[in-house]
Amino acid sequence: MTIDELTFDAAGLIPAVVQQYDTREVLMVGWMNAEAVRRTAETKRGTFWSRSRQEYWVKGETSGNRQHVKQILVDCDADTLLVLVDQEGPACHTGTRSCFENGEIEVAA
Amino acid sequence: MTIDELTFDAAGLIPAVVQQYDTREVLMVGWMNAEAVRRTAETKRGTFWSRSRQEYWVKGETSGNRQHVKQILVDCDADTLLVLVDQEGPACHTGTRSCFENGEIEVAA
Repeated sequence: MTIDELTFDAAGLIPAVVQQYDTREVLMVGWMNAEAVRRTAETKRGTFWSRSRQEYWVKGETSGNRQHVKQILVDCDADTLLVLVDQEGPACHTGTRSCFENGEIEVAA
Repeated sequence: MTIDELTFDAAGLIPAVVQQYDTREVLMVGWMNAEAVRRTAETKRGTFWSRSRQEYWVKGETSGNRQHVKQILVDCDADTLLVLVDQEGPACHTGTRSCFENGEIEVAA
């Protein structure tokens, strides 16, 4: 499949779920535009578009906690990516391994 | 954490990554509004907002492939959910277990 075949949203973005390839832990969700997908595939470093700062960012570029990209899977609607990586150190800017250690919505007993 | 503390996008939606709780397979990504989050937490059935049909849908309501919700985790920005489920049968409407069996973007060698 090619990047041209992906469906981007009105802002030109597609959500990318990042998962540790061996333990299958979901680490984070970032957003990519077509160029970020291209850079991620070409450089094998998780590269995203920051919606708040309106700029590209490469995971680990400042922190050193790099993502070594193994595979980029596309979902059935071609509007979501699942990026399998080998994550060095914590994936979250808060210092936790995963971004999903922040809290939870209580589910009925 | 409460639903009021979540950050929804301009359309009032939050992406929900759905993961099989034991194997950690990522099954699908759906979208929820606040009411869909509330229904998912209360009924323990994955409940989403269809952006194309503009209506609620409960996973498995027609197919029988229900999602038994175990946990709803919130990410560091409170703008993405990770929903841990026990998925009956295929999660994808195409009949595959996961929605991410559709293809991939080739990563450089």
